[in-house]
Amino acid sequence: MTTSTSNTGPIGVAVIGAGMAGRAHCAGYRSAPTLFDPPLPPLRYVAVIDADAAVAADAATRYGFERSGTDWRELLTDDSVHVVSIVVANALHREIAEALLDAGKHVLSEKPLADTIENARAMADAAAAHPDLVTGTAFVYRRQPAVAAIKNLVGQRLGEVSHFNGRYWCDYANSPLTPMAWRYQGGPGTGALNDIGSHLIDLAEFVCGPMTHVSGASFTTLVKERFVAKGTTYGHSRAELTEEKKAVENDDVATFTATFANGAVGTFSISRIAPGHANSMAFDVFAQHGAAKWDMDRPAEFSVVLNESDDALAAYNGYNQVLVGPAHPYLKGGVPMDFPGVSYGVGDLFGFQARAFLEQVAGIEGGLPPVASFADGLRDLEIINAVISSAAAGGATVELPSHH
Amino acid sequence: MTTSTSNTGPIGVAVIGAGMAGRAHCAGYRSAPTLFDPPLPPLRYVAVIDADAAVAADAATRYGFERSGTDWRELLTDDSVHVVSIVVANALHREIAEALLDAGKHVLSEKPLADTIENARAMADAAAAHPDLVTGTAFVYRRQPAVAAIKNLVGQRLGEVSHFNGRYWCDYANSPLTPMAWRYQGGPGTGALNDIGSHLIDLAEFVCGPMTHVSGASFTTLVKERFVAKGTTYGHSRAELTEEKKAVENDDVATFTATFANGAVGTFSISRIAPGHANSMAFDVFAQHGAAKWDMDRPAEFSVVLNESDDALAAYNGYNQVLVGPAHPYLKGGVPMDFPGVSYGVGDLFGFQARAFLEQVAGIEGGLPPVASFADGLRDLEIINAVISSAAAGGATVELPSHH
Amino acid sequence: MTTSTSNTGPIGVAVIGAGMAGRAHCAGYRSAPTLFDPPLPPLRYVAVIDADAAVAADAATRYGFERSGTDWRELLTDDSVHVVSIVVANALHREIAEALLDAGKHVLSEKPLADTIENARAMADAAAAHPDLVTGTAFVYRRQPAVAAIKNLVGQRLGEVSHFNGRYWCDYANSPLTPMAWRYQGGPGTGALNDIGSHLIDLAEFVCGPMTHVSGASFTTLVKERFVAKGTTYGHSRAELTEEKKAVENDDVATFTATFANGAVGTFSISRIAPGHANSMAFDVFAQHGAAKWDMDRPAEFSVVLNESDDALAAYNGYNQVLVGPAHPYLKGGVPMDFPGVSYGVGDLFGFQARAFLEQVAGIEGGLPPVASFADGLRDLEIINAVISSAAAGGATVELPSHH
Amino acid sequence: MTTSTSNTGPIGVAVIGAGMAGRAHCAGYRSAPTLFDPPLPPLRYVAVIDADAAVAADAATRYGFERSGTDWRELLTDDSVHVVSIVVANALHREIAEALLDAGKHVLSEKPLADTIENARAMADAAAAHPDLVTGTAFVYRRQPAVAAIKNLVGQRLGEVSHFNGRYWCDYANSPLTPMAWRYQGGPGTGALNDIGSHLIDLAEFVCGPMTHVSGASFTTLVKERFVAKGTTYGHSRAELTEEKKAVENDDVATFTATFANGAVGTFSISRIAPGHANSMAFDVFAQHGAAKWDMDRPAEFSVVLNESDDALAAYNGYNQVLVGPAHPYLKGGVPMDFPGVSYGVGDLFGFQARAFLEQVAGIEGGLPPVASFADGLRDLEIINAVISSAAAGGATVELPSHH
Repeated sequence: MTTSTSNTGPIGVAVIGAGMAGRAHCAGYRSAPTLFDPPLPPLRYVAVIDADAAVAADAATRYGFERSGTDWRELLTDDSVHVVSIVVANALHREIAEALLDAGKHVLSEKPLADTIENARAMADAAAAHPDLVTGTAFVYRRQPAVAAIKNLVGQRLGEVSHFNGRYWCDYANSPLTPMAWRYQGGPGTGALNDIGSHLIDLAEFVCGPMTHVSGASFTTLVKERFVAKGTTYGHSRAELTEEKKAVENDDVATFTATFANGAVGTFSISRIAPGHANSMAFDVFAQHGAAKWDMDRPAEFSVVLNESDDALAAYNGYNQVLVGPAHPYLKGGVPMDFPGVSYGVGDLFGFQARAFLEQVAGIEGGLPPVASFADGLRDLEIINAVISSAAAGGATVELPSHH
Repeated sequence: MTTSTSNTGPIGVAVIGAGMAGRAHCAGYRSAPTLFDPPLPPLRYVAVIDADAAVAADAATRYGFERSGTDWRELLTDDSVHVVSIVVANALHREIAEALLDAGKHVLSEKPLADTIENARAMADAAAAHPDLVTGTAFVYRRQPAVAAIKNLVGQRLGEVSHFNGRYWCDYANSPLTPMAWRYQGGPGTGALNDIGSHLIDLAEFVCGPMTHVSGASFTTLVKERFVAKGTTYGHSRAELTEEKKAVENDDVATFTATFANGAVGTFSISRIAPGHANSMAFDVFAQHGAAKWDMDRPAEFSVVLNESDDALAAYNGYNQVLVGPAHPYLKGGVPMDFPGVSYGVGDLFGFQARAFLEQVAGIEGGLPPVASFADGLRDLEIINAVISSAAAGGATVELPSHH
Repeated sequence: MTTSTSNTGPIGVAVIGAGMAGRAHCAGYRSAPTLFDPPLPPLRYVAVIDADAAVAADAATRYGFERSGTDWRELLTDDSVHVVSIVVANALHREIAEALLDAGKHVLSEKPLADTIENARAMADAAAAHPDLVTGTAFVYRRQPAVAAIKNLVGQRLGEVSHFNGRYWCDYANSPLTPMAWRYQGGPGTGALNDIGSHLIDLAEFVCGPMTHVSGASFTTLVKERFVAKGTTYGHSRAELTEEKKAVENDDVATFTATFANGAVGTFSISRIAPGHANSMAFDVFAQHGAAKWDMDRPAEFSVVLNESDDALAAYNGYNQVLVGPAHPYLKGGVPMDFPGVSYGVGDLFGFQARAFLEQVAGIEGGLPPVASFADGLRDLEIINAVISSAAAGGATVELPSHH
Repeated sequence: MTTSTSNTGPIGVAVIGAGMAGRAHCAGYRSAPTLFDPPLPPLRYVAVIDADAAVAADAATRYGFERSGTDWRELLTDDSVHVVSIVVANALHREIAEALLDAGKHVLSEKPLADTIENARAMADAAAAHPDLVTGTAFVYRRQPAVAAIKNLVGQRLGEVSHFNGRYWCDYANSPLTPMAWRYQGGPGTGALNDIGSHLIDLAEFVCGPMTHVSGASFTTLVKERFVAKGTTYGHSRAELTEEKKAVENDDVATFTATFANGAVGTFSISRIAPGHANSMAFDVFAQHGAAKWDMDRPAEFSVVLNESDDALAAYNGYNQVLVGPAHPYLKGGVPMDFPGVSYGVGDLFGFQARAFLEQVAGIEGGLPPVASFADGLRDLEIINAVISSAAAGGATVELPSHH
């Protein structure tokens, strides 16, 4: 184990936040030791923390954690805890992460890494100050087998990428009756761009390498006011509305273009008012020797063109449908029945992510690709900020800092 | 709890067989208590049994079972075991199931229920003789959210079904270099029909209700001989071949038609030599007021036509793509992030199945649909037998026994 | 020119019947000389005949025919007419065709060749008695570029076909309010099987070669009675209904299996009560070295699997989408802008068919594939008859006459 | 007839240019009188002009024009000619169009309207100076039935459009062995943007209404040099190459964003180096009450979401596949067999376009939508110019002139 909390016993795991995503982290840790080879060292499921004691207790019982609590600070002094997931409101990430790192814990933070770029930078600095600890940002979509398969083709059989065309379209904000909520407040870029575009931006760099510039950013707000709900609302749910309306402050639709260090160009289209798209991220990658595409609506497959034969130039040119299976990343040993055509679900992704993080903590070499670091989490916010700057400057080109 | 082994402690679980499917059962039991409401009673993961001690031990460690062993008979006298999955060769199912039932255990058997219809009938009789015990046949594909969503439409918004058109196409036997194996031996109908057609037949009755007749059965063997491999082979893998060839005794392709009790007609097409189809089951259902279709290659979606408006009769007639989400069976509470477009994997299905069986054992009302019974397992074999009889009689119509 | 009406002037064309299909023949002849190389000999558009004088006159004007008339017999003695299309009610085909052949005309008959197999056989005999005249049955779907491309792969790069799975699904009869019409009367097999199944059967033999047996035929009538309409109805249109109901005498759904001379097996599913399918024919072909599929709903493409590389056996196994273009049959020179991705419409098919028939009449070698003969038209009816016999015998196997 | 060349005889038609597109115009005029109601006035097919006398003669013979010639000026004084299509190199459009208008002819010009915006403006001015003559720009893709069906939904059942996402991807320039040609020379924006992007831009305004700004334009050239061919090359064909290379001067990929007068935002992605896409234009339109999408690879269908019921918000949210048929624009009366699922080809589009132009000339009211005007052709070039300006200014926002 590479942890400063060196010991010879099991790796102790805790999760802070037991909402939907927090429970996904719990489930991921629970399935991690069942997956892949070699076996992980023994794990100990120590604690689930949530401000709501009943929620924390329920999660602890379901996922087999030893105890639950309401105060994350109790983990700081618990020597049996080595690995902690932070799955609470973004504005709390920095304080918790800094404290955990100072206490010698490995930290896996949900994305976005922080609520502001300043806080994200502080967290990346804190991670750099603790090189003996593993830090991660939970860009769980990197674990999708089809996406990983495409990434492995880029720069290899596909050759250098020339063009990335991505979109993330949701419909959660399309109805004017969806009530006002925190997600509709904050300046331009804190809307669709930050909420869902952040995933697409991360995948774009994951697949194509670092961007150098963004350009032509444009934000649009079509639903300009929303009714205030009568009580508390959760997630994207409907609610009884008052007659009061408040202004929507941020972007329903965000579009921009980008250039990559390798000369490729990217087009990005992001919307939260896209009827028919409950939750739909997709991209096309074009390269010297072919193309690939993937659509989260059809997660069990991807499509490729490999221009390696004369056929591809004439009568049989077109996309090849590829159903993911044991020949692709993650699936061999990563799902219970690892034969072709088995698909995978979001739960599997959290298992792969938890396993990868635990492999890093345990110092297992040659296993899964490592989790995105805090630096990667900062990077995502840097790009979002640059897109906001481009929009503020009427679409002007904005140079990105180089990605460390 | 409805078990004869009444107690007030946790429900003890054991799995016999730790190959791929056995491990899937282990994983299913492991995730079952994390899913849905209300919480399950406490579970105890007692034992994994496999003829190969190392395989059993690995599974026990990974999935958190207390011990492993090589002799299933040790479970008979273990009072801490209440629920047992049988996931070994079909020819062993009867002996094990009868012994477990006599020992007061609830038994979930992998499909097909037995190697012969006589043995399956004996197992169904044994189950009937123990009405206090829960028995199940693991038709896990019934747990697919999209399939379950379609079943719920049939007889309801879709009206009475008129036509079922199903196919199960695989390519595992297409290469003449795939070596001879046990699966290519046995009489007509023991090939593609029994191996994969059995799943399709089960889903057809699951969705459309009982069949009354089968007709026009036709078996075809295109690869008439296969080379004997040099050593032992596993699953569908390639191997070094000897020069010796043996005759393939059973069906590469099986086709037949069926009639259902409600007057509907069915067409079935089953092949193990279908290039391009690694593992591809799909069906169309037509009914009075619309249609639905599903394809295992695209598990995260299904398609419906609902002819309820004038639109549907004119300019907007056609299939509606439906991406599964929390509005459909199993997904609300059944996957960690239960928002729209989350997909699901084969691991999720085993979790749903294990949860359903444990709900039955624990006497939880109003939960998941129950697991197919031993009687359902027998039924599947009765239909397969009738198809074999039809083929033997040159395609003549064969009447099925009524389904109890 | 191979015609007995030898002359050195233009080829004179006439069309009998100016309903929808008759006008399609007119349009086909009109575009035929604009297509492909070498140029056709000069054509003369002589006459359009229809029982309704105004309909005939309108068609003649639109398509540039010199005159119109109401009596097909006037063509018999018109030496300027060499080629005649018969596009009237099936029961009239025989009389007209025999008279035209006796008058030395080349005859292209719409399908089905006749109303009864006896009349079809008489027509095939008449054709055989006039070997100097060209006869054709207008199976226009053979002209679809994607279907022709698949046919060209079978027996070649795909190797021997093993399995054909076809379906023709329409929804025109699904509503119980669609009024009674002639198409719902006649015995079993005169419904969906004859109306639309005949096209599928023709394509099956076109792609896979001759069938030898049919088996397991099953007919189902779900809408057992229909209201009589108040006035005359045309095509599939709705109408004001009386309260009188009459029994539907023939098949809403027809299913059967078949075997081919090359050992392949076929599954056929045909329905006129398939909601969501306005007019949907599709098939899959599996063969030694791959597979192909086509769906009339997506006419501009087909899909192939070619198992010629290791890729195809592992990570990139799956269907390749092929968009039809100039690399495929008919499109180079057959559409005005013959670049990739141009699609084609039903009008193009009638142009290809007319051109092919005129090439045969003009004795042009090496051009388009010839039109299906009267013998092919008879063949289609022989297979339909065998399916009817199989159904009458409870699904028993029925041997087909060999195809001459 | 609204022509200044008033007469009582037939409308005389001529086509200048008999290459692929010129022949498509010829074919369109030939089929125009066969389509729709009411019948067109009589047509007279007068002349086909091409610099290559043999090419002109072949086209005249095939399409039934009375004569051919090599000098377009001979049409100026031919009183039997009323309607002329210009289908020659862009740089010649202005001179020919001005002369024809001055001679009192109606003029249909291929797109782009001219080689430079100055010439296009002069042509629009010339058209304005002859209000008694009909002028048109041949944006033939506006005639696609599926595109027209979507246009008809926008602002109506779909409500106001919020977001347009379009792409036109081809692969003709992807191979570095495709030789240098005129299309690779000229400044930024004269490449993919002008060649294929011009179609997409026209459809965007056709469907969504006028744009007001473009922004974030980015041009990328991935294949920076190309080999000079040994002889003359045609179209996109391969050729024997010399060892000499020349610099590619224009864009392989062009991306930009746009805003529309109605507040909607657009994202445009255009590439000529997109492997797997022979000729692939597609777009998504999102609006208040739903969405629609269309892909030229699947021309016979489009997809819609109509959020008009509770269903659409829950279990059955997703795209509805719509197969074009007689319920959609152009198909009723526009194809020979106008039943559902008939598809259409590029030839049909030229027929619809020719018919529309002839209806305008003949003063037929209530028929097909009119052909895009010379002003529309100018507009397309204005937008292209603005995109070029945006790119030159590092992606800055560029305001468009209002569209007259």
